[in-house]
Amino acid sequence: MTDARFVRTRGAVHAAVCEVLLAEGLGGLTVDRLAAESGISRSTIYRNWPDLADLACEVFDELMHRDEVEFEGAADVALRAYLADYAERLNDRVYLAVLVALVDGSTRDTAFAEVHARAFSPTRSRAGAIVRRGQREGWIDPALDVQGCVEDMVAPFLYRRLVRQVRITNRQVDDLTGDLLHRWHPTS
Amino acid sequence: MTDARFVRTRGAVHAAVCEVLLAEGLGGLTVDRLAAESGISRSTIYRNWPDLADLACEVFDELMHRDEVEFEGAADVALRAYLADYAERLNDRVYLAVLVALVDGSTRDTAFAEVHARAFSPTRSRAGAIVRRGQREGWIDPALDVQGCVEDMVAPFLYRRLVRQVRITNRQVDDLTGDLLHRWHPTS
Repeated sequence: MTDARFVRTRGAVHAAVCEVLLAEGLGGLTVDRLAAESGISRSTIYRNWPDLADLACEVFDELMHRDEVEFEGAADVALRAYLADYAERLNDRVYLAVLVALVDGSTRDTAFAEVHARAFSPTRSRAGAIVRRGQREGWIDPALDVQGCVEDMVAPFLYRRLVRQVRITNRQVDDLTGDLLHRWHPTS
Repeated sequence: MTDARFVRTRGAVHAAVCEVLLAEGLGGLTVDRLAAESGISRSTIYRNWPDLADLACEVFDELMHRDEVEFEGAADVALRAYLADYAERLNDRVYLAVLVALVDGSTRDTAFAEVHARAFSPTRSRAGAIVRRGQREGWIDPALDVQGCVEDMVAPFLYRRLVRQVRITNRQVDDLTGDLLHRWHPTS
């Protein structure tokens, strides 16, 4: 397969993964379903993605890193931009469906669990980078644990989307930004 | 079916639901699998639980309210007791598997979503009761939103278990208790 053809095939298969996860969750993810949904032959899918867990993880990796933006500028601007971007991803039905599939798969399958661990590693994440920068620049207490601060950033919205299943509003992005800047401040 | 016989049947079916969710997630939950796992006939399962979503929700409701304890005593004692109890539930593999199934199902199925909404309703939850009591007794700023405080209590551990997939330690229960009492205090 040429590179261009592979890119098209991968695009069709990735789109099919999203469709299936949205409609049926991880339980519906089979090569037969993907072939029917994508129009790509079962043998091509088998050959390129012998493990469907890897395929689902590849899709999640791509969604996570799609349209990445740099978070520069003043502390409040950078933090708010990160939280707004994160809220927008979580508000997306496809992203949420793939995230739920990843959580679901990770409880039983080590392939999922590894992507999972990588995706949420605080030392590699964009959230972790913002916290370390905040500590260097003096707007986050350097005594605070980076992992704990990352959790402060991501846990509330994840809870709202995964558990309460409500959308994140701009107002909530503003409120969390203000709340975190206050809580993390060296003198607070 | 006599009441005693129904209680036994329900116990066997509920245990089978837990087994299946632990091994395969919601995608594996079929009447055939439950019959094979529980030794209860398919027709009995169909008759009593025509909707498997309702059945899964019934199991989750039961796990949520199993061994409920009263949270009395001083503020820090009550809050710590709640968080310790919550951590213990989340650390349980079966509880986690059923919770993940509920999250998974709720993204697609309104039956799940309704149990979900009920289970996490702040006005009915034990966490909400602790917050309202704290506001009456003066150790939680009465200007704080109850829903926001409930989120402060439950989001961090849920994130750790669902997303980071690590166990909650006693140390983390102590730390979160202290952190919340500080953050919520009327003068902070």
